Amino acid sequence: MINYRLILLLLGRLVLLEAFCMLLMVLVSLIYREADLWHLFYSSMVTMLSGGLIVFFFRNASKEMGKRDGFVVVSLAWVVFSLFGSLPFMISGAIPNFTNAFFETMSGFTTTGASILNDVESLSHGMLFWRSMTQWLGGMGIIVLSLAILPVFGFGGIQLFVAEVPGPAPDKLHPRIGGTAKRLWAIYVIFTLMEFGLLLLGGMDAFDSVCHSMTTMATGGYSTRQESIAAWDSPYIQYVIILFMFLSGSNYALIYFALKGSLRRVWQNEEFRVFLVMVLLFTFLFTAILMLTYHGDLETKFRNSLFQVVSIMTTTGFVTYDYLQWTPLLVMLLFMLMFFGGSAGSTSGGIKVIRVWLVVKNSYLEFKRMLHPNAVIPIRYKKRAVPEQITSNIINFVTLYMLVFIVGVLVMSVLGLDLSTAMGSVAASLGNIGPGIGSVGPDFTYAHLPDFGKWFLSFLMMMGRLELFTVLILFSPLFWRK
Amino acid sequence: MINYRLILLLLGRLVLLEAFCMLLMVLVSLIYREADLWHLFYSSMVTMLSGGLIVFFFRNASKEMGKRDGFVVVSLAWVVFSLFGSLPFMISGAIPNFTNAFFETMSGFTTTGASILNDVESLSHGMLFWRSMTQWLGGMGIIVLSLAILPVFGFGGIQLFVAEVPGPAPDKLHPRIGGTAKRLWAIYVIFTLMEFGLLLLGGMDAFDSVCHSMTTMATGGYSTRQESIAAWDSPYIQYVIILFMFLSGSNYALIYFALKGSLRRVWQNEEFRVFLVMVLLFTFLFTAILMLTYHGDLETKFRNSLFQVVSIMTTTGFVTYDYLQWTPLLVMLLFMLMFFGGSAGSTSGGIKVIRVWLVVKNSYLEFKRMLHPNAVIPIRYKKRAVPEQITSNIINFVTLYMLVFIVGVLVMSVLGLDLSTAMGSVAASLGNIGPGIGSVGPDFTYAHLPDFGKWFLSFLMMMGRLELFTVLILFSPLFWRK
Repeated sequence: MINYRLILLLLGRLVLLEAFCMLLMVLVSLIYREADLWHLFYSSMVTMLSGGLIVFFFRNASKEMGKRDGFVVVSLAWVVFSLFGSLPFMISGAIPNFTNAFFETMSGFTTTGASILNDVESLSHGMLFWRSMTQWLGGMGIIVLSLAILPVFGFGGIQLFVAEVPGPAPDKLHPRIGGTAKRLWAIYVIFTLMEFGLLLLGGMDAFDSVCHSMTTMATGGYSTRQESIAAWDSPYIQYVIILFMFLSGSNYALIYFALKGSLRRVWQNEEFRVFLVMVLLFTFLFTAILMLTYHGDLETKFRNSLFQVVSIMTTTGFVTYDYLQWTPLLVMLLFMLMFFGGSAGSTSGGIKVIRVWLVVKNSYLEFKRMLHPNAVIPIRYKKRAVPEQITSNIINFVTLYMLVFIVGVLVMSVLGLDLSTAMGSVAASLGNIGPGIGSVGPDFTYAHLPDFGKWFLSFLMMMGRLELFTVLILFSPLFWRK
Repeated sequence: MINYRLILLLLGRLVLLEAFCMLLMVLVSLIYREADLWHLFYSSMVTMLSGGLIVFFFRNASKEMGKRDGFVVVSLAWVVFSLFGSLPFMISGAIPNFTNAFFETMSGFTTTGASILNDVESLSHGMLFWRSMTQWLGGMGIIVLSLAILPVFGFGGIQLFVAEVPGPAPDKLHPRIGGTAKRLWAIYVIFTLMEFGLLLLGGMDAFDSVCHSMTTMATGGYSTRQESIAAWDSPYIQYVIILFMFLSGSNYALIYFALKGSLRRVWQNEEFRVFLVMVLLFTFLFTAILMLTYHGDLETKFRNSLFQVVSIMTTTGFVTYDYLQWTPLLVMLLFMLMFFGGSAGSTSGGIKVIRVWLVVKNSYLEFKRMLHPNAVIPIRYKKRAVPEQITSNIINFVTLYMLVFIVGVLVMSVLGLDLSTAMGSVAASLGNIGPGIGSVGPDFTYAHLPDFGKWFLSFLMMMGRLELFTVLILFSPLFWRK
């Protein structure tokens, strides 16, 4: 039995939480004395009233919660947040169209960063702040989801990577969420403040610094400028953002231990090492190819390479250069990187480094297995044999990711998009990146896509964000049986 | 220890066999009294002499043969066949360039059908016959390889599909090859003769009928015309070719049992059912979309749809219509079909229907496993549980296929090809299809690719033809250790 009353109660509470966050946006509008003040206030009041009414009606719901209820709450949370979160855009007239407003908000809460805005600078400070905040809140949701909730669900082999999460053992949901979340959110908030300070020092104005530190930490990628980070040609600012993108693409549990002084633990973490080596390797490769193909100085090329590699791998989606202008090989490599993603337990999307790494390792071991058909040869991760069940979970996750990608590209083709755009929009939405290739590249937006395409991509963002299974399982008849 | 002497002896015998087959080409040249008679005769004599010398020198080789020797012989067989097989093209001057001649011959023996010829009609009858014959011989090799040799190697879960192969149990290599091969080759020869007769009846001339029945049965796709089957607008001829492409894309062991009267066995075969349903489903879909998007009569559209779907799925590569002219959605669907391939145990390439089917099934079961984490839920094939080991073999094969595809696309991009051409040429070579998308579509050839690209694609053809592992394992240090 699914406990609908409890689900509604929990969603109601989340809506109330969202309403309080909206008040911050109202405050920003008040500070800048902008014309949309009342619109934004009105939006937050509607949200608060709705949340309050739901909570009031279902306050007596039984507190018994099963795994299935968990799936429903998590998936609906993103939908409900996006529905209410799009109110300010619509009511203030910043994005009057419902499809566009929902797309922009879902892209925010899923920390994707795909936008339908062709003139970001025309938005009021209140709206820009809210847009950045959706990503920051989404990032908070993901940290607790990926390190505390999903491991209990047992999805995609994620148990393996978060075995070291600070907090109680992963058998009880409630105490774990509480204990883990507090520790990791503290890091998230502190890093956001640190980035804010460093950006301010680099000469970015206070408002832009706030917005960009929120969207960096969430690996979201919304900027207050149409040109994204290219608008600031200060190397210092770009390196600061690179640093924090990289941190956000790392496992938060690992960062927690590093801050507690266990640096050895960081280096012993196989995923972190692979992540770091991949970033360095691809940056080197990109820099070398750029040096061979174009004129210009080394530092700029290195910085652009590092920025784009880190931004795509961590699925942030900030840009300092329209990478579609680069030679096709680099575009292809970046497109490939869109599938990798950052570390498990980070705010980044995509398949995740660890899964890609284990699948590649497993393919290699298959040769060994062929030569020694009677030996049992498991994958090893951090020198320990990975249980068969988890290996299978991981491979199935990657397979499913590719299946969803293929179906997605077919759907976008049905809408008449060319191959590059279809592939780019699906990879960038499913991987929660933002800019893709083709006509959804860094110099374009998603505005020109047909409405159905926007809804479909919103769905893919949510699916990718919630590690596929959480959402897809709701569409399986098995889920609803008995 | 690898028994190099035995390997050379076996290769020498194969070269002798090839030389005798070349004599048939000489005979054709004699019949048509063509100018290249002596060139072709000379080529076959060089081949015969080489083979004879190798056999003579290594006639006393120890007959002890291990699995590793098997890998080496199988991979080298295709290389050696292509090297000698390209002699007639070079010596007669039909394809003077070595890279091109090797590409064309490897494309023949791997039953791919990718061509560098921009004017097929200018070739002599002898050369056209040899070109078709390379495919026919390749097909014979593949039947024995996929039903008798590879199952002993234990590659990519293939044991599962060929459990019902006629002949002794798959533990001894030699008796099995002999017994199985004779039975299945008989079917291959009889079907070739039947198709020849039916094409002749439809008004195709005797020479074209011979050539096309050889390349259909091999699911090769070389034609005697630049336009391929579009050169014959007789619906009868096209339907005959569709029928035999479909038969060749089916499991030969199954055909054997069908001919022995066990029709029930055919219907009970899950892979055959899936293959048939997929062909019908895609044909229906294509016809419907063509009816909605273009003017014209139903029968032509149905026939073109059926032809292209069967041709691509069986990895034959004949065309009756330049499918790149169709709406992008259909191109995308055909591109997707390039990965599927026909049945295991057929002459077709690609991933194979059964593997795709089991991977999709497994992804679906993953949801069930999530909901019941303590239950063991295996995939079922033909109502029996598939052993964990074989499931894992299959999934690893598909993963490796996709990895090779991705690396292949990157390599072709490095050579400066656009995305469509890079993806099309790699998918069509690895899947042994022939025509791809982009600038290697049905109306183009592979002639314009850079030399390195041709060698690389030749390698991919061989790798795809030999189910990846056979070839790749030779590049693994594990193979050569100890």
